[in-house]
Amino acid sequence: MDNYADKLLNAVKRKGNPCIVGLDPRLDQMPDFVKATPRDNLDRAVRRSIIAYHKCIIRAVAGLVPGVKLQSAFYEQYGIGGMQAFMDTVRYARERGLVVIIDAKRNDISSTAEAYANAFLGRTQIFGNSTKVIDADCITVSPYLGKDSLDPFVEACKAYGKGIFILVKTSNPGSSDLQDRKLSDGSELYIRVAGLVNRYSEGLTGELGYSPIGAVVGATFPEEAMRLRKLMPRSIFLVPGYGAQGGTAAMAAECFNDDGYGAVVNASRSLTYGLGSPGISRSEAVKEIKNRTKEMIERVNEAIRTKTEKRSA
Amino acid sequence: MDNYADKLLNAVKRKGNPCIVGLDPRLDQMPDFVKATPRDNLDRAVRRSIIAYHKCIIRAVAGLVPGVKLQSAFYEQYGIGGMQAFMDTVRYARERGLVVIIDAKRNDISSTAEAYANAFLGRTQIFGNSTKVIDADCITVSPYLGKDSLDPFVEACKAYGKGIFILVKTSNPGSSDLQDRKLSDGSELYIRVAGLVNRYSEGLTGELGYSPIGAVVGATFPEEAMRLRKLMPRSIFLVPGYGAQGGTAAMAAECFNDDGYGAVVNASRSLTYGLGSPGISRSEAVKEIKNRTKEMIERVNEAIRTKTEKRSA
Repeated sequence: MDNYADKLLNAVKRKGNPCIVGLDPRLDQMPDFVKATPRDNLDRAVRRSIIAYHKCIIRAVAGLVPGVKLQSAFYEQYGIGGMQAFMDTVRYARERGLVVIIDAKRNDISSTAEAYANAFLGRTQIFGNSTKVIDADCITVSPYLGKDSLDPFVEACKAYGKGIFILVKTSNPGSSDLQDRKLSDGSELYIRVAGLVNRYSEGLTGELGYSPIGAVVGATFPEEAMRLRKLMPRSIFLVPGYGAQGGTAAMAAECFNDDGYGAVVNASRSLTYGLGSPGISRSEAVKEIKNRTKEMIERVNEAIRTKTEKRSA
Repeated sequence: MDNYADKLLNAVKRKGNPCIVGLDPRLDQMPDFVKATPRDNLDRAVRRSIIAYHKCIIRAVAGLVPGVKLQSAFYEQYGIGGMQAFMDTVRYARERGLVVIIDAKRNDISSTAEAYANAFLGRTQIFGNSTKVIDADCITVSPYLGKDSLDPFVEACKAYGKGIFILVKTSNPGSSDLQDRKLSDGSELYIRVAGLVNRYSEGLTGELGYSPIGAVVGATFPEEAMRLRKLMPRSIFLVPGYGAQGGTAAMAAECFNDDGYGAVVNASRSLTYGLGSPGISRSEAVKEIKNRTKEMIERVNEAIRTKTEKRSA
């Protein structure tokens, strides 16, 4: 079974950057050219519009970046049509050779966590057949329920060559409410979670020295990222918060190791929405998405170079 | 706008008990009489089998209990067919007058949390129309991302007359890993979360004295439940862990206030699976589910009475 960390980092090497494009459908902000008319079947129109726009984005960026990230909330908000578009998007992105990260932040007690792990990463027994359901490359999971709620996801990673990113320090201001709470031993809660992630990583590293058990670390907290980088040396960080949330390339660069690897940086809205007037043409939209993605790639790569050179100087 | 706490507690009063029946599809354990044949369309067979069994369960218990709880993981593991069965189950349970609780443990940063709140409780703008998507009565949410990740759910409760249950102390053994961590002020993390829940509850109480902002408190930790009951006097507790997970009626009773209200107790597997041989008939299955549900109702009501009498003695 392939190690997922190798798969992701080889894609990063091949594309020459660690940037991930978020595919979060916002129907009301999509360009007119993808919008279907909801004549008789609303679910079908939703599904068609979303997949039309996502195919457009994926074609624009498939040659540029190693992967895409789907935020499950934005699909669920559109009901069955949204969920069908979710499945379509996963399938199409994989066909185009992209790593598919699902940002679902799932968490539940053991037998239920196993059902989530089967759904997103593994296989479900359906009428006696072991069936792939979503078959993404990896998923984000929340740690509030403790280790026995994370174990089934770790087992799925081992069994199916997949990955998870455990929420450690998230990009939102409110992440301080619980994650930054000082424990009686003087360290913060997120530091304890980082310890959990690091223990899972032991013995699971692939050829490139990284583990399929990663961490979500927001670009908006660079000091925390520096500490976390040292505490989880073998884990790949999924770094949200770049762009629309205020994280810069220099801030995101703190999530990387001195080898220049160890993190992937996601941007969603800032790459794929607000491209111009709703009447923008398909070719103009593709051009704009490509330009924005290339600009992000340049900035992030430049920031990683600067940081690595400073360290080795 | 109706207060959701009033709606739930009036249903508890009407049915004379606080028991909730879990509807967690496990296709391989369902009786033969509901299983469709997956001839040409797997999703359709999945959907038909699940809704057939859930209609059977709902008809059996609709006259007995105030509500049902759907665990989203067990639907998601079956893909689109599972999600369609999820929508069908929500709709059918509501038609039968049951309160519908979705155990989805969602959590995300603010704009994304809003998408989840729209999906499960509120409305989504779809092609210019404000559209109900799942329209459940309430949902469970995880607090790891902090207050700004919970606010959109609280706003949805106010806007749409819905409810949430915030995870405070979950029923699994691993809940001790993070939730029981002592903070530097000497109290545990779950106590801090309880404070957050209680602050939300202020000013939101309905006619019966309870708030739509509730808490998940496992039946498996009765001592913690006693403390939490005092810290969140206005919150309704959703109590999982009864039955298959080892929680007893006496343990669950600690989640109730002296007025005999303040909690709903859920059981899933122990009521609806392992009913007998796979070849069991529909009428035998209905009878068995009714008997088990009645037995749970008796035990839980008896335990609440015993506890209340002890207190007032």
